[in-house]
Amino acid sequence: MQEITVLSPATVANVVCGFDCLGFCLEEPNDLMTVRLVDKKTVKIKHLDDYNLPLEPEKNVAGKALLAVLERIEENIGFEVEITKRIMPGSGVGSSAASAAGAVVAANKLLGERFSQNELVELAMYGEMVASGAKHADNIAPCVLGGFTLVRSVEPMDVIQIDYPTLFATIIHPQIEIKTSYAREILPKEVPLKSAIRQWSDVGSLIAGLQKGDYDLIARSLQDFIIEPVRKKLIPSFDEVKTASMKAGALGGSISGAGPSIFMFSKDLETANQIKDAMNGVYSQTGIDFKIYVSPISSKGVVKQ
Amino acid sequence: MQEITVLSPATVANVVCGFDCLGFCLEEPNDLMTVRLVDKKTVKIKHLDDYNLPLEPEKNVAGKALLAVLERIEENIGFEVEITKRIMPGSGVGSSAASAAGAVVAANKLLGERFSQNELVELAMYGEMVASGAKHADNIAPCVLGGFTLVRSVEPMDVIQIDYPTLFATIIHPQIEIKTSYAREILPKEVPLKSAIRQWSDVGSLIAGLQKGDYDLIARSLQDFIIEPVRKKLIPSFDEVKTASMKAGALGGSISGAGPSIFMFSKDLETANQIKDAMNGVYSQTGIDFKIYVSPISSKGVVKQ
Repeated sequence: MQEITVLSPATVANVVCGFDCLGFCLEEPNDLMTVRLVDKKTVKIKHLDDYNLPLEPEKNVAGKALLAVLERIEENIGFEVEITKRIMPGSGVGSSAASAAGAVVAANKLLGERFSQNELVELAMYGEMVASGAKHADNIAPCVLGGFTLVRSVEPMDVIQIDYPTLFATIIHPQIEIKTSYAREILPKEVPLKSAIRQWSDVGSLIAGLQKGDYDLIARSLQDFIIEPVRKKLIPSFDEVKTASMKAGALGGSISGAGPSIFMFSKDLETANQIKDAMNGVYSQTGIDFKIYVSPISSKGVVKQ
Repeated sequence: MQEITVLSPATVANVVCGFDCLGFCLEEPNDLMTVRLVDKKTVKIKHLDDYNLPLEPEKNVAGKALLAVLERIEENIGFEVEITKRIMPGSGVGSSAASAAGAVVAANKLLGERFSQNELVELAMYGEMVASGAKHADNIAPCVLGGFTLVRSVEPMDVIQIDYPTLFATIIHPQIEIKTSYAREILPKEVPLKSAIRQWSDVGSLIAGLQKGDYDLIARSLQDFIIEPVRKKLIPSFDEVKTASMKAGALGGSISGAGPSIFMFSKDLETANQIKDAMNGVYSQTGIDFKIYVSPISSKGVVKQ
C-alpha cells in the first residue's frame, strides 16, 4: 500500500469531572486526510481547506507527528499528506488532535501496523504539542482508539479503554475564540483537598457507571466543582445552555476541552435532538454565530475511508 | 425473630488513591454481636470484651446507631446488644464501623429488612460519628454491603458497589496508637491541581481495573501522591514494609484508614502469605508489637452467624 485516505474524527476531552484524563470520540465532524509514502525521508503537507494553517512540517500538527514517526523508523521513506480540515481549529473538539492522530494512524497502516496503540498516542502527542504547547493526550487517545478513554499517565503513556453504553452527545460550538493558554492560566494552581476528594469520587463513580452501563449513576457523577466554575465564565450563556439541556433530558455535560464548545450527553438520538433544539433556543438570542452537532459516541476512532 | 447473632467484619478504607471514598470488606477479623428486640423504646449495651468501651448508648458506637434506628420507626420497641469485640479499636481496619454496621444490619433483620442499603449505611454513620467525630462512611459501606465500595456522596448517601476480581489483603497492625484527629490535622488543606489530576486519573483507572478484573491495571493505579507521603511518617518502617511487600509480589497497597495498619493486595493466598512473611521480617526488627492478618476480600459484609 502506497497511499491511504482516512477520516479522523472530532473528540471531546475534559469530560466533566475527568479533567485532563477522560475523553471520547465522535462520529462527526471529521477531517479527511490522504497520506502517501514517498522514498525520501521528508514530510510534505498540503491543506485543501481555508484555515490557513502553517505548512512547514515542524509547525504543522500532522507534519510534526509524522516527523516523530520518521525518527522511530530506519527506512529511507517519508510522507506526503493532503488534509481537508472540517473540524474548525479552536472549537474545543480536538481539531489539532484529529490532524495528529489521523496522520500517525494512516502512516502506521502504510507501515504495516508496527506501532502499538500507546505508541501511536505518544507519536501523535508530539504533533499536538505544536498547537497546544502542552503534553496532553486526552483528545488524541479517543481519536486513535475510539470510544471512551482514560489517559492514566503520559510518561509513560498509559491509555485505558473504558466500556460504555449507547450514548449520544449534542455539542454547541459558539463561534468565538478562547485562547487555550488563557483558559489554562485562569485555573487555580491549588485546590481544596475537599473539592479534590469530591472530584475523584465522581471520576470513580463515572467510570463505574460507564463500565456498568448505569445511566443514573453516570448522570449523578457528571459534576465538576473545580474547572467548570472557573472556565464557564469564558463562554456566553453557559448556564442557560446547561439548564435548557438538562430540562430537555440531558444526563449531564460541561465544557468540551478548553471550550468554547459545550457538550451534553443523552441516552438516545431523540433526546439528543431535543437538546439541540434547546441549545438553539438559547443561542439564537445571543447574537453569536454557532453550530450544533449531534453524534453518537463512536467506537471507531480514525478509520479508512 | 426476637434475637439474632451476626459477625461484623473489619474493613479497609482510604484505598490508596481512593482517599475518603474507596473501601473493601475483609473476612476476618470480625466482631460477634447479638441483638435482641425488647418491648420498650430503649437501647442497652453489654460488652463481653476487655476494651473498656463506654456503655451509655449515646456514647457507644453501636448504641448511637441503634438510637438512630429507633428514631426512624414508630413501634414501641428497643434493642439489647451484646458485643464481643475482636477488632481492636484504633487499629485502622474499621473497628467502630463494624460495631455500628453490625448493630444496624442485625436490627434491620429483626425488623423485617425495612431499610435500604443506603439507609443502613446512613444509620450506621450516626454511630461512627461518636468515634470519629466526622461524617464518613467508607468503612461502613463495605461492612454493610460487602465487597468493594465507593462512597460517592454522604449527603445524599450514594454508595456504589464495584466489581472486583479475586483479591487478597495482607494487613499488618503495629500495636501503636495514632489519633485519627491528628492524622486528619496533618493533611494539607489545599493540594496542587496537578497532584489532584494525577490522583483522580488513578482513581478512575483503579475502578476500571477492578471492574475489568485487570490485575496489571489495578497495580499501576495503586498510587497515592497526596495522603500517603504525609501520613506514612506516623507509621514506623512504613517504607520498608511496602518495599518488602512489593518484592514479595504485592500488587500495591498503603495505609489502612488513618493507620497505623498497612494493607497490601495480592492475587492469591500464596502471595498473600509471602507478603505476611515479608512484613514479619521487617517488623520483627522494630521492637514494636504487631499482628498480621491475611484475608480475601469478602463479598459478604455483616452476616448472620
